[in-house]
Amino acid sequence: MAVRNGTDQKARIRREATRLFAKQGYEATGIQELSEAVGLGRGALYHHIGSKQRLLYDVIATHLDELVVAGEALLDAPISAEDKVRRLSRLILQTIVDDVAAWKVFMHDFGALKGKLRADMIAQRARFERIWVDIVEQGVREGDFRELDRVAMMAILGAHNYAPVWLKARGRLSPGEISDTFCDLLLAGLRR
Amino acid sequence: MAVRNGTDQKARIRREATRLFAKQGYEATGIQELSEAVGLGRGALYHHIGSKQRLLYDVIATHLDELVVAGEALLDAPISAEDKVRRLSRLILQTIVDDVAAWKVFMHDFGALKGKLRADMIAQRARFERIWVDIVEQGVREGDFRELDRVAMMAILGAHNYAPVWLKARGRLSPGEISDTFCDLLLAGLRR
Repeated sequence: MAVRNGTDQKARIRREATRLFAKQGYEATGIQELSEAVGLGRGALYHHIGSKQRLLYDVIATHLDELVVAGEALLDAPISAEDKVRRLSRLILQTIVDDVAAWKVFMHDFGALKGKLRADMIAQRARFERIWVDIVEQGVREGDFRELDRVAMMAILGAHNYAPVWLKARGRLSPGEISDTFCDLLLAGLRR
Repeated sequence: MAVRNGTDQKARIRREATRLFAKQGYEATGIQELSEAVGLGRGALYHHIGSKQRLLYDVIATHLDELVVAGEALLDAPISAEDKVRRLSRLILQTIVDDVAAWKVFMHDFGALKGKLRADMIAQRARFERIWVDIVEQGVREGDFRELDRVAMMAILGAHNYAPVWLKARGRLSPGEISDTFCDLLLAGLRR
């Protein structure tokens, strides 16, 4: 086996863990199986991952963290709320298609996270949802969107967050085309 | 323990299994734990459930089967597509709120079903999705809805199917009120 540096190893372990967790679930995946999949002994594996819980957190958090960073940057852009909806929608669907397996683990195994890691993930998910809220509030403030009960946000979130169930890389439509149709539907509902 | 008939027993086992699967996942729930939760020996438990896979199928399928029956009956009603969207949306959100735990198991552990049970469930899910498709096609045919790419259906489905993640019994809004807001948003997007 070639010598790898720690960052490479960690990324490789996360990839294998994502594949195994997505295929059979977090609980059903043992440390022994992970060890064999990545070709490391248990000691070396634990050195890289800290714990199996921490590894699950990393699998789930990596893309959510990227989305939060990109989404919060978008909030400051000098563009309309409608344009922000379109950009955020594209970003989400592209991020999902780029690593459907990791988002399946998010959907299926979020509940397996415990204690502080779970609390951190809930806080990060709330931060992500806040981006949608802020964009829609901008649209209402600027007179582009009508006022709907805030539960409408859960329809918009759900439309996107459910995508790991059915979205495929190299499907009939690109993520951008899917996002265009979603936004045509949702923005017509949001507009005043 | 009082004497119970087979149907009562089966319903009781399904309730306990739903609770345990929702809390800790299908894979992490052993037959021994189920035995203890329902106060039956393994032999008696297997007599009622057939297999752990079959039990998972029953947990997941029960409400979906109800939705398919009610949804297909709705298709024949002499009412507009818009009214059908509103009724189906209410039905789904009410069904979810009535047994959030079972729908969480659906989301998290669908992938744990194998073989014929899995194929049956995929077919039943497709039948359910077909109800949405038929309603929207009626709306387009009657000139009420505009033509959108069929992927728009996945936004409508996702808006509803993601609800087990956040929907709570006795929340701020009733399922009917949530459905009204969802439909205000989605129907504005569907209308010509």
